[in-house]
Amino acid sequence: MTYDIALLPGDGIGVEVVDATLPILEDAAERGGFSVETTRYDWGSERYLQEGAMMPADAIETLEGHDAILLGAVGHPDIPDHVTLRGMMLPIRKAFDQQVCKRPSVLFEGVESPLRGYEGEDIDFVVFRENTEGEYTDAGGHEHQGYAHEVAVQTAIYTRQGTEAIVREAFEAAEERDGRLTNVTKSNAQAHGMVFWDQIVAEIAEEYPEVTVERLLVDAASMDLVRRPDEFDVIVASNLFGDILTDLGAIVSGSMGLAPSANINVEGHSPSMFEPVHGSAPDITGEGVANPLATVLSVSMLFDHLGEDDAAANLWNAVASQLADDGAPRTPDLGGASGTESVVSDLRTRL
Amino acid sequence: MTYDIALLPGDGIGVEVVDATLPILEDAAERGGFSVETTRYDWGSERYLQEGAMMPADAIETLEGHDAILLGAVGHPDIPDHVTLRGMMLPIRKAFDQQVCKRPSVLFEGVESPLRGYEGEDIDFVVFRENTEGEYTDAGGHEHQGYAHEVAVQTAIYTRQGTEAIVREAFEAAEERDGRLTNVTKSNAQAHGMVFWDQIVAEIAEEYPEVTVERLLVDAASMDLVRRPDEFDVIVASNLFGDILTDLGAIVSGSMGLAPSANINVEGHSPSMFEPVHGSAPDITGEGVANPLATVLSVSMLFDHLGEDDAAANLWNAVASQLADDGAPRTPDLGGASGTESVVSDLRTRL
Ligand SMILES: CC(C)[C@H](C(=O)O)[C@@H](O)C(=O)O
Ligand SMILES: CC(C)[C@H](C(=O)O)[C@@H](O)C(=O)O
Repeated sequence: MTYDIALLPGDGIGVEVVDATLPILEDAAERGGFSVETTRYDWGSERYLQEGAMMPADAIETLEGHDAILLGAVGHPDIPDHVTLRGMMLPIRKAFDQQVCKRPSVLFEGVESPLRGYEGEDIDFVVFRENTEGEYTDAGGHEHQGYAHEVAVQTAIYTRQGTEAIVREAFEAAEERDGRLTNVTKSNAQAHGMVFWDQIVAEIAEEYPEVTVERLLVDAASMDLVRRPDEFDVIVASNLFGDILTDLGAIVSGSMGLAPSANINVEGHSPSMFEPVHGSAPDITGEGVANPLATVLSVSMLFDHLGEDDAAANLWNAVASQLADDGAPRTPDLGGASGTESVVSDLRTRL
Repeated sequence: MTYDIALLPGDGIGVEVVDATLPILEDAAERGGFSVETTRYDWGSERYLQEGAMMPADAIETLEGHDAILLGAVGHPDIPDHVTLRGMMLPIRKAFDQQVCKRPSVLFEGVESPLRGYEGEDIDFVVFRENTEGEYTDAGGHEHQGYAHEVAVQTAIYTRQGTEAIVREAFEAAEERDGRLTNVTKSNAQAHGMVFWDQIVAEIAEEYPEVTVERLLVDAASMDLVRRPDEFDVIVASNLFGDILTDLGAIVSGSMGLAPSANINVEGHSPSMFEPVHGSAPDITGEGVANPLATVLSVSMLFDHLGEDDAAANLWNAVASQLADDGAPRTPDLGGASGTESVVSDLRTRL
């Protein structure tokens, strides 16, 4: 079996972590009894600065044929974020109907949480984030520029199809895990979109009688991720709320440098995309100290998605074993002084 | 001087904390050389259950004549939140054009933050939250109920007037404080509303050359409130983002039970409203253990708003002194075993 993976290193440390991860991706595949062919596309902000577009016109067509996509990071200090993201990451999520964004938050043994009293393995939940609509819908406008009656409008759209897709995946995951689902909305303030979302959750809940459903408002949920992160199992949330909750999940679990992510096309007709949650980090780009572990864990999720469970587990366990080992190299975000390369070299010995 | 304050105890522990706070409110006024007349309106969920409306039809007219409003909390386990809140708290904010919501987050000495390494007084920032429009706009719809093409739409509206009002107040505050303003948006994903917001901030920044402006995306800002809460001075954010960030601010500062809030009518033609950030907490209602301190601090903000600086400082300092005192009574949310009444009795001795 050979899988055909598209690499989109993107910008800043995105390039560093994707490049660093390749050798271990290949090792893990070999040990898993399959092989991986990678094609690298140097799209991103540098391309934008030279050619005026983040990606070529046929980018989506080009990616379509691949079995999966590994993305590094997108973002450049000289280009507004809405240009870079809307020029690359967001259109891929939408074009390939990657409706489900899955983001685990795990406090690995050996990693210090910024929260008092939380030790390794106390925190272990997964967020299912709606990924192609909701508050990220590109609908709205801006009128009367510069006048006193100037007004801007931003519209969120929630479809039954999109909402059902994410909610169902979350229930499926809860059923496989501890049977607890937390539905995060803001229905007290947003009586159109969010009340509809709650209704879909209530409907689908009937199909999963073994799953206990808790409802939280997004403000309370954000607070609770700090107050009692150990009590969550599966969280389901809209695009924007999932974005916020997963950054909180990453930090309470010790570091943005450890948070992986999967953007999944549920039907399987188009490639899914895997990416670390962290950004392009211009402040540390070029120093060779970017933490590659979120990317390695994202590759683990990629293999899992392809059905290569052993390779997926092998990578995940290698990361866990390295983090649990006091003597192993660590990047600065985890309090260490090692570089990206030595973390990967050590990791290869743990497969 | 006599001020005429409307009391809206509301629901659950809202009633308990407002009632408990009255004696100390009167003490502080007396010591400040002014008096306060209070009128209590028993509006809220009980009224809704009996009469079908949270407030009477002339509620806004009734409140209009008061110098300020003190609200407890709104919310009932048997009534959907969008009914209770949209029946009482949100319409008051809108009717009186309380465009500016000001919420300080202070880690008082003697209070333990859930974050490792943060001690008393390390955290001290204030959030200026837009309070009457944005994502809380009641615009949107829901069509094709029950069909596959069912869709719900929720529209956020940002006006120049509303955005300028909150942004200007935030710059004013930054100028008086440490001169640092953090503007939180999500412009990479919301290119209509949020890019407009950023433009208003850039415009007004020119009037405040001494204020340093930092821009953060809401996901990064949420994370940073956990990672580096000591580095913030003034934060300005939209209605929804302010809602999330202030709950995070409350928890990193030790307890929801300590977070006060002001909903300010900037022009001064209508009353402003002061309220603890916490909710009605049905789980502890009736046990007499609700923390009254967020309400006391809200009264301090109320006095400050009325120009009664001494009384405001007196209340604030009494709370700080009680919290710094190991032997003083504390409610369970702060790790103590005392009730609401004994916290207030002790506090009265500290004025
Ligand atoms: C970069 C940004 C558009 C993106 C998002 O908001 O989805 C990022 O924050 C993420 O979480 O993947
Ligand atoms: C109760 C709710 C409508 C309210 C809000 O979202 O504004 C509350 O969370 C707050 O922060 O005051």
